[in-house]
Amino acid sequence: MSVYGGIEAGGSKFECAVGTAPDDLHALETIPTTTPGETIDRVVAFFERAGPVAAIGIGSFGPVDADGDSPTWGYITSTPKPGWANTSIAPELQRRLSVAVAFDTDVNAAALGEHRWGAARGLDTFCYVTVGTGIGGGAMAGGKLLHGFIHPEFGHMRIPHDLEQDPFPGVCPFHGDCWEGLASGRALERRWGRSPAELDGDPRVWSLEAQYLALGLVSVVYVLSPERILVGGGVMRHPGLLPLVQRDVARLMNGYQHAPTIMLPALSPRSGVLGALALAESA
Amino acid sequence: MSVYGGIEAGGSKFECAVGTAPDDLHALETIPTTTPGETIDRVVAFFERAGPVAAIGIGSFGPVDADGDSPTWGYITSTPKPGWANTSIAPELQRRLSVAVAFDTDVNAAALGEHRWGAARGLDTFCYVTVGTGIGGGAMAGGKLLHGFIHPEFGHMRIPHDLEQDPFPGVCPFHGDCWEGLASGRALERRWGRSPAELDGDPRVWSLEAQYLALGLVSVVYVLSPERILVGGGVMRHPGLLPLVQRDVARLMNGYQHAPTIMLPALSPRSGVLGALALAESA
Repeated sequence: MSVYGGIEAGGSKFECAVGTAPDDLHALETIPTTTPGETIDRVVAFFERAGPVAAIGIGSFGPVDADGDSPTWGYITSTPKPGWANTSIAPELQRRLSVAVAFDTDVNAAALGEHRWGAARGLDTFCYVTVGTGIGGGAMAGGKLLHGFIHPEFGHMRIPHDLEQDPFPGVCPFHGDCWEGLASGRALERRWGRSPAELDGDPRVWSLEAQYLALGLVSVVYVLSPERILVGGGVMRHPGLLPLVQRDVARLMNGYQHAPTIMLPALSPRSGVLGALALAESA
Repeated sequence: MSVYGGIEAGGSKFECAVGTAPDDLHALETIPTTTPGETIDRVVAFFERAGPVAAIGIGSFGPVDADGDSPTWGYITSTPKPGWANTSIAPELQRRLSVAVAFDTDVNAAALGEHRWGAARGLDTFCYVTVGTGIGGGAMAGGKLLHGFIHPEFGHMRIPHDLEQDPFPGVCPFHGDCWEGLASGRALERRWGRSPAELDGDPRVWSLEAQYLALGLVSVVYVLSPERILVGGGVMRHPGLLPLVQRDVARLMNGYQHAPTIMLPALSPRSGVLGALALAESA
């Protein structure tokens, strides 16, 4: 069995791993995301120490260019993150480590990881939604990671904004009260003036959050028809939120079709880096 | 080249065809949808006259069971249409005509038809949305028709309801003001008291309609990331509606990613029956 490398390239940290499977990791390192130059230097140094590997998979924060035919394949493209717009990730590592590299979004990598070893094993069409600072989504359709025109984003859908209960205008710089604008961790923090972790005791907070999350998931259900929806990310770690979301999705669907199973990912918080490892096989 | 049969099984009529391609149709017949027994008798008689065919493809109104492993594969399942719930379509025709039958939703068949001969040639991930009496959608993802848990529906997503401009509560018996509840032909007719065809001259009607259609399409864009969206169905035949929808989608996306091309299907109104013909090849 070949040894692969996996990188979950995140906005705050790069998780790097070498191994063959979740129970056979030879090395694991968390590198803080600073400048592209420094961060990538440290990633290269990690693989030089922990390698050799047959190939490397990268699941990256975005927006990314994951189109294999594009001249900027493997780049982070138009991110507002200072210094990171138009950064070569995959070609740079390919060149410096002389190894084949596969590249996809962080959420598609997480979906792949859950498909291989976690809560989506044996499924054909499912999605992975992460509710953290932002809201993102990855999906597999008919057994293949979904790319399409750019790649799924999920977070920027419009949902009904409950203005009576919630006059908060939303935090998305592009859309104001889109799904991410209303229901991301950043929205929670801005609306209530405290971080999600500090909001534990207030039921109003979580019933509104569940309502908004469910409204977005219902659109996911009706467009993609996933067999299962995995919801991960920091916000979903709030105890009791998942059952509220499940209840609200069922209430909103109101008996028109069965709701798919909605559950937490099994590999969290390593779905992404393990998925990147699985992705390496396709390099 | 084999000669195939295609059936678009609709709630008001069954379109049947025999041939090899849009420019090589040997027979074409429209059969009104009455009772299941009478309708299917007339379909059988058509193929007995116009055949023989190597296989038949059926794109059906629904909800349908398109799961090849299910004991009720090829059935229309829980439709509210009187007399048609739990009706065997594909197995019945297979038995009576002794021919292989492929079965899918009407909108997936339409998507396949447009992929083979129409406005989606060469695409990998796209969708076909029909805005008629209801709103439905079919999609191809990664080169394969999307099925998933049940199949995409599209119409029952929730969208922001512009209550200030539009206090109309929506017509969906399950959800009230879901996408179909607000923007289908039935909603137009009920809201304004006239059929879509009679509403031609009133710009308020069509700017509200475009706004609602665009809100739903934005969710489709962010979940599926289609390379192209084909919008068909009777309501879309209103001249001038498509450009309003295109404008509103761009306005709602507000520069966050490019909007995919949104256009009318090329084979309309025969996308469905021609797609059924293409579907027959997979029987």
